[in-house]
Amino acid sequence: MKLLRFQSSGRNGWAVCHPATGAWHGCTQGAPAYPGDVDQLLREGRTALDGAAATMARQPVVDLAAVQLLAPVARPAKIICVGLNYRDHTAESGFVQPAYPTLFARFNSSVIPHGAPLLHSPLSDSLDFEGELVAVIGTGGSRITREDALSHVLGYSVFNDASVREYQFKTPQWTMGKNFDGTGAFGPCLVTADELPPGARGLQLETRLNGQTVQSANTDDMVFDIESLIVTISEAITLEAGDLIVAGTPAGIGHAREPRLYMKPGDTCEVEIERIGLLRNPVQSQHASAPRPSEPAIA
Amino acid sequence: MKLLRFQSSGRNGWAVCHPATGAWHGCTQGAPAYPGDVDQLLREGRTALDGAAATMARQPVVDLAAVQLLAPVARPAKIICVGLNYRDHTAESGFVQPAYPTLFARFNSSVIPHGAPLLHSPLSDSLDFEGELVAVIGTGGSRITREDALSHVLGYSVFNDASVREYQFKTPQWTMGKNFDGTGAFGPCLVTADELPPGARGLQLETRLNGQTVQSANTDDMVFDIESLIVTISEAITLEAGDLIVAGTPAGIGHAREPRLYMKPGDTCEVEIERIGLLRNPVQSQHASAPRPSEPAIA
Repeated sequence: MKLLRFQSSGRNGWAVCHPATGAWHGCTQGAPAYPGDVDQLLREGRTALDGAAATMARQPVVDLAAVQLLAPVARPAKIICVGLNYRDHTAESGFVQPAYPTLFARFNSSVIPHGAPLLHSPLSDSLDFEGELVAVIGTGGSRITREDALSHVLGYSVFNDASVREYQFKTPQWTMGKNFDGTGAFGPCLVTADELPPGARGLQLETRLNGQTVQSANTDDMVFDIESLIVTISEAITLEAGDLIVAGTPAGIGHAREPRLYMKPGDTCEVEIERIGLLRNPVQSQHASAPRPSEPAIA
Repeated sequence: MKLLRFQSSGRNGWAVCHPATGAWHGCTQGAPAYPGDVDQLLREGRTALDGAAATMARQPVVDLAAVQLLAPVARPAKIICVGLNYRDHTAESGFVQPAYPTLFARFNSSVIPHGAPLLHSPLSDSLDFEGELVAVIGTGGSRITREDALSHVLGYSVFNDASVREYQFKTPQWTMGKNFDGTGAFGPCLVTADELPPGARGLQLETRLNGQTVQSANTDDMVFDIESLIVTISEAITLEAGDLIVAGTPAGIGHAREPRLYMKPGDTCEVEIERIGLLRNPVQSQHASAPRPSEPAIA
């Protein structure tokens, strides 16, 4: 199953992709057939989500060109990002590859959907791209074993973990540079795990800036695979339905290039992962950007 | 105003403190007079919260000994913690005092209320205390000026940012050691800003382990005061109602002592801030601990 969330005429909705035609079928809150919000269905479990998706599949076709996409999960309780998870990126960043996953957090206030502008803050010119695979937790748990790990993943999507390098390295902790408003692009859709190889392994990931390929790697090259990340995180931190694990970026970041290649207003950045999707975002000056579609306070 | 949240007979409720008698008046969800959840009222704004508090003040007295307290905010969208915010603690930790706030994140899955056990994980014996002031954002905003900063604070509470040092320092990022389940104690109550000095300045903070004072400082000693933190964070990150800024710990942590002084099952840790409250938590082995009062998926 592929699903995406969207906003149309001020209402949030979602849609599922017809496997044969590729058309998206769905509706918005308030429609008689609306089966509930994705975040809530995620918490209720896979059976509830599948039932709702079957209802959505019978709804009219949604013209994606006529709506604004929303992030596939509205309010993840946790966005756990993994740094230094491809050896070539660790080396280009000047770090020694840690034997334990390097985790940091993104707040949901920084997240934008496919199509929305990546915001270039007036505070710094060092906005950098980071194409990444993201795993969406479907079933929460703690102390999850490696054998069970993938059964906790609902599906996968694409993330651009755009980073303001100047602020990332102002102090020992990367938090600030990883959480500027409008810098975490997430989407366009969620592809359930059953449509992909286990752990989303063996998929080609590519980041393009204005059409030029700047990152190209395979998810097989991750130092810590999705199973390992789930096992390690859940040893100490209870995972919840809807949590995101943003699995790290490969080599090629603009900060490690000579000369440096940062994103500027007017640029377009794309992250594409084979069989999952293509996430495209224009880059806009923060003050010039249009307001983004607002999520309700509680999704 | 002082308010606290609690659970009684499986229902969440909250209460306000009578300024003259010190008695707590309140009720739980489902009671006819219940004026709504604190998180929701926070988002609606101070007028809504004040109206609800006036309703609560007319409810029966709640016997705090007969209920379980809950964290003052159920689901903060962001918990932004500040490291290295007292010079003496920065020095004891072996860091150079950064000229910019060192921010890291806690996930709400790690938070426990007053009275609940701090969980000592079987993974490590390095569970350390960190007594801290926490500011609760009442009015969201971005690019907040210093003059306006304190008007965005609803109130203050007490935090024990308990840290698993071994995991905090496994990689360049502190996230893992700051997010073990059952390590972020928050409470007992929220005291609105109008009852305290501006910015909660000049308040004595003390941490006691089994009755022995291990940290003693004044909030005046913070390198970055609450106004500065709000200004700096909101330059880049939109603050939302209910967000927490956990403002850093002074010298005295167990990790910097010789011999080291970590928390063990059977210990009791208290953090007290003058005019705000006393946060007390026993330390329990993770596997032996009783289940903590569960928050609803959506508060």
